[in-house]
Amino acid sequence: GGRFRASEHQHARYNPLRDDWVLVSAHRVKRPWQGQVEKPPPEDVPRWDPKNPLCPGATRANGEVNPQYEGTFVFPNDFPALQPDAPEPGDSDHPLFRAAAARGVCKVMCFHPWSDLTLPLMSLAEIRAVIDAWAELAAELGASYPWVQIFENKGAMMGCSNPHPHCQVWASSFLPNEAHLEDRTQRQHLTQHSVPMLLEYAEQEALRKERLVVENADWLVVVPYWATWPYQTLLLPRRHVCRLQDLREDERDSLASIMQRLLIKYDNLFEVSFPYSMGWHGAPTGPYLEEDCRHWQLHAHYYPPLLRSATVRKFMVGYEMLAQAQRDLTPEQAAERLRSLPEVHYKQRTK
Amino acid sequence: GGRFRASEHQHARYNPLRDDWVLVSAHRVKRPWQGQVEKPPPEDVPRWDPKNPLCPGATRANGEVNPQYEGTFVFPNDFPALQPDAPEPGDSDHPLFRAAAARGVCKVMCFHPWSDLTLPLMSLAEIRAVIDAWAELAAELGASYPWVQIFENKGAMMGCSNPHPHCQVWASSFLPNEAHLEDRTQRQHLTQHSVPMLLEYAEQEALRKERLVVENADWLVVVPYWATWPYQTLLLPRRHVCRLQDLREDERDSLASIMQRLLIKYDNLFEVSFPYSMGWHGAPTGPYLEEDCRHWQLHAHYYPPLLRSATVRKFMVGYEMLAQAQRDLTPEQAAERLRSLPEVHYKQRTK
Ligand SMILES: O=P(O)(O)O[C@H]1O[C@H](CO)[C@@H](O)[C@H](O)[C@H]1O
Ligand SMILES: O=P(O)(O)O[C@H]1O[C@H](CO)[C@@H](O)[C@H](O)[C@H]1O
Repeated sequence: GGRFRASEHQHARYNPLRDDWVLVSAHRVKRPWQGQVEKPPPEDVPRWDPKNPLCPGATRANGEVNPQYEGTFVFPNDFPALQPDAPEPGDSDHPLFRAAAARGVCKVMCFHPWSDLTLPLMSLAEIRAVIDAWAELAAELGASYPWVQIFENKGAMMGCSNPHPHCQVWASSFLPNEAHLEDRTQRQHLTQHSVPMLLEYAEQEALRKERLVVENADWLVVVPYWATWPYQTLLLPRRHVCRLQDLREDERDSLASIMQRLLIKYDNLFEVSFPYSMGWHGAPTGPYLEEDCRHWQLHAHYYPPLLRSATVRKFMVGYEMLAQAQRDLTPEQAAERLRSLPEVHYKQRTK
Repeated sequence: GGRFRASEHQHARYNPLRDDWVLVSAHRVKRPWQGQVEKPPPEDVPRWDPKNPLCPGATRANGEVNPQYEGTFVFPNDFPALQPDAPEPGDSDHPLFRAAAARGVCKVMCFHPWSDLTLPLMSLAEIRAVIDAWAELAAELGASYPWVQIFENKGAMMGCSNPHPHCQVWASSFLPNEAHLEDRTQRQHLTQHSVPMLLEYAEQEALRKERLVVENADWLVVVPYWATWPYQTLLLPRRHVCRLQDLREDERDSLASIMQRLLIKYDNLFEVSFPYSMGWHGAPTGPYLEEDCRHWQLHAHYYPPLLRSATVRKFMVGYEMLAQAQRDLTPEQAAERLRSLPEVHYKQRTK
C-alpha cells in the first residue's frame, strides 16, 4: 500500500519502439540466488594464435589464409545463415504453412589484429576505425539489400565462440521482425506527433537525466525507461540521423568517445569483460533508399545478460518466454549504478 | 541453385500465432562448435533434503514449515514478482513514459515429494495429479485474474534454481504481451476463416504427418512449422477446448499419457534430463470469462534450448535479439529425430 515508488512497487512499463510491455518488480532482487553460475571469461587469451581463424596470417575453414591485417579486417562468414542464391520456396498451399524466399550475405569483421583486446581497451583511433568500417559496410551492402544488421556477440555467455574482437554483418533481402516492428512504431509516432520518436525521446531523457549513463555534444546513452535486460542501454544521436553512413566526421569521433566511456563502465561494473549482444538499427536501405525515412532515427541497442555479479545472469525463461519480460531492478537504479562508475578501465588503473 | 529443398536452402517461415517470421538455415548445423559448453545436470540429487525449501517438512524462506505432502503441493512464492496490493503508478506525463498498474499472485507447485524425480520418470497417475492441480489453480485464480500463466523452468540452463520437480503459476491483473498477441492473431483467424486457428492447424498436421512427434485420440504434439528453438514443440488438443479446466476426465488421462511419451523422448534425445521452459496458454479468464472465446484453443509450448548434444545449446543472441530468430535444422528434421526415439526412458531400459 502507500504512495507509489517505482523501486518498491511492481508495475508495467510501455516500450513504444516494440509496442509491448515489461513488468518491473524491483523488490525481486532481494531473493537469494542458488541457481546456475557462469564461468568468468578466460584471462589468458594469447595475442596471436595461428590456429585461431580470426588472427592475421591464420588459415580459415575454407582454406583461405588471412592477410597480415593491421586494422579492421572484413571477410565472408564461412558458415553463412544467408546466401545470395537460394532458390524460392514454392507457393504455399495453405495460409498456416507460409514460406518465403530469404537471400543475403553474412560477413565477419575483426576489430583489431590482437585477440586479447576488446573495444573498451582500444584507443579512440582504433574504435573510430571500427565505426568507419561499419559505415562503409552499411553503405556497400545497403546499396542493394533492404536490411544490413551489424551486431556483436561479446562473451561466451552470448554464444560467441571466439575471443578475438569481432562483429558480424548479415544483410538480407527482407526486413527482419525487429526492423519491421521499429519501422511501424516509428512511422506511427511521426504521423501522430510530427517528430521522430527517438529524437523526442533523447530530448526528454537529456532533460530528465535520471536514466542517463553518459552523454556528449552529439550522443547520449540511457537505460531506456522500458529496458528489459538489467543493464540494457540505448545509444542515441542528438540530431536526426537516418543511417550510420550519414554520420559526419566529428560525429564519428564523438561516437568513438561515448562508446569507449560506456564500455569501460560496463567492464567496471563487475570488474569483468562485460558480455553483451549489441547492434545497430537505422533506416532500411536497398529499395527503401528512395523512400521517406524521416520517421527513422539511427540507434544502437546493448543487451547485456549479467544481473548480480560477473557470474550471475538474468534468465529470460518461463514467464518471459510465455508471457512477458520481467526485470528485477528499475532502469533508474541501473542507470545510477552505471553513471557512478569510473571512466578509467579497471585493468588500466594506476594503483 | 536448383530445385528448392527446405533442408538445403535457407528460407523464412511465417508464425501465424505470433505474426512474425523465423529464418531457417538448415545448412548451418554443419559448422563446427568451439563455443560455450554447458554443465550437464547433477546426477546425485538426494531424494529428500531438509535444507531444500521445496521438500516435505522443510522450512521455507518466510519461516513456514512445509507439510509432509504426498502428492502435489502448492504454496505462495516467497519472492513474488506480482503482489495483490501494489499501488497505481501516477498518470504518465508523456506518451513515451507510460506506466501501468500490475497486480497479481505468484505460486509454486511441487509435482511430487521426491527431489530426484522429474515428470518423464513419474507414473501416469502422478502426472494426472499434476494436471488436475493445474486445472484447479487455473480455475481458482482465473475466477478473478484475466491471465493465469502456468510455466515450468526445467534445468539450470533455464534459470531453474532448484532440482525438485516443480512449476510456477503467475496470475496477473493484465494480459501479458504473449497473451495479447495470441489473442489478436487467433481472433483474426476465426474472423477470416471461420475456424479456430489451432484447431485447423492440428487437423492439417495430423494429415501431413511430417512434423508429428506423438499423437493419441485426444492430443497431438508437433514441431510447429514455424518453430524457433531446435526441438520446440506444440501440444494441441484435437477438439476445440478453451481452457485447462474444461478438459474432461478421459482427456486428462490421455494428456498425462502424451506428456509422458513426449518427455521420455526429450530425455532420450541426448540421454540427459532435457532442459526446457514450458507453459500453458488458454483463453483469458476473470472478466473475459463472460466473453466469446471461440477463437482461442488451449495449447502448451515447449521451448528447449539444446541443439547438438547434452552440453551444446542454441544461443538466441545478436541476430536473433536484434533482427529475427534463426534456426539451424528444419522443423521436419527435428520431428523425425524425436519421432524415431524409443518411448522407454533411457534410465528405465532393461539391458
Ligand atoms: O522464480 P525463479 O524460478 O527463481 O526464477 C526464474 O524464473 C523467472 C520466471 O520465468 C525468471 O524471471 C527468473 O529470471 C528465473 O531465474
Ligand atoms: O555465427 P556465430 O557467432 O557462430 O553464432 C552465434 O551468433 C548467431 C547470430 O546471432 C546465432 O545464431 C548463434 O546461435 C550464435 O552461436
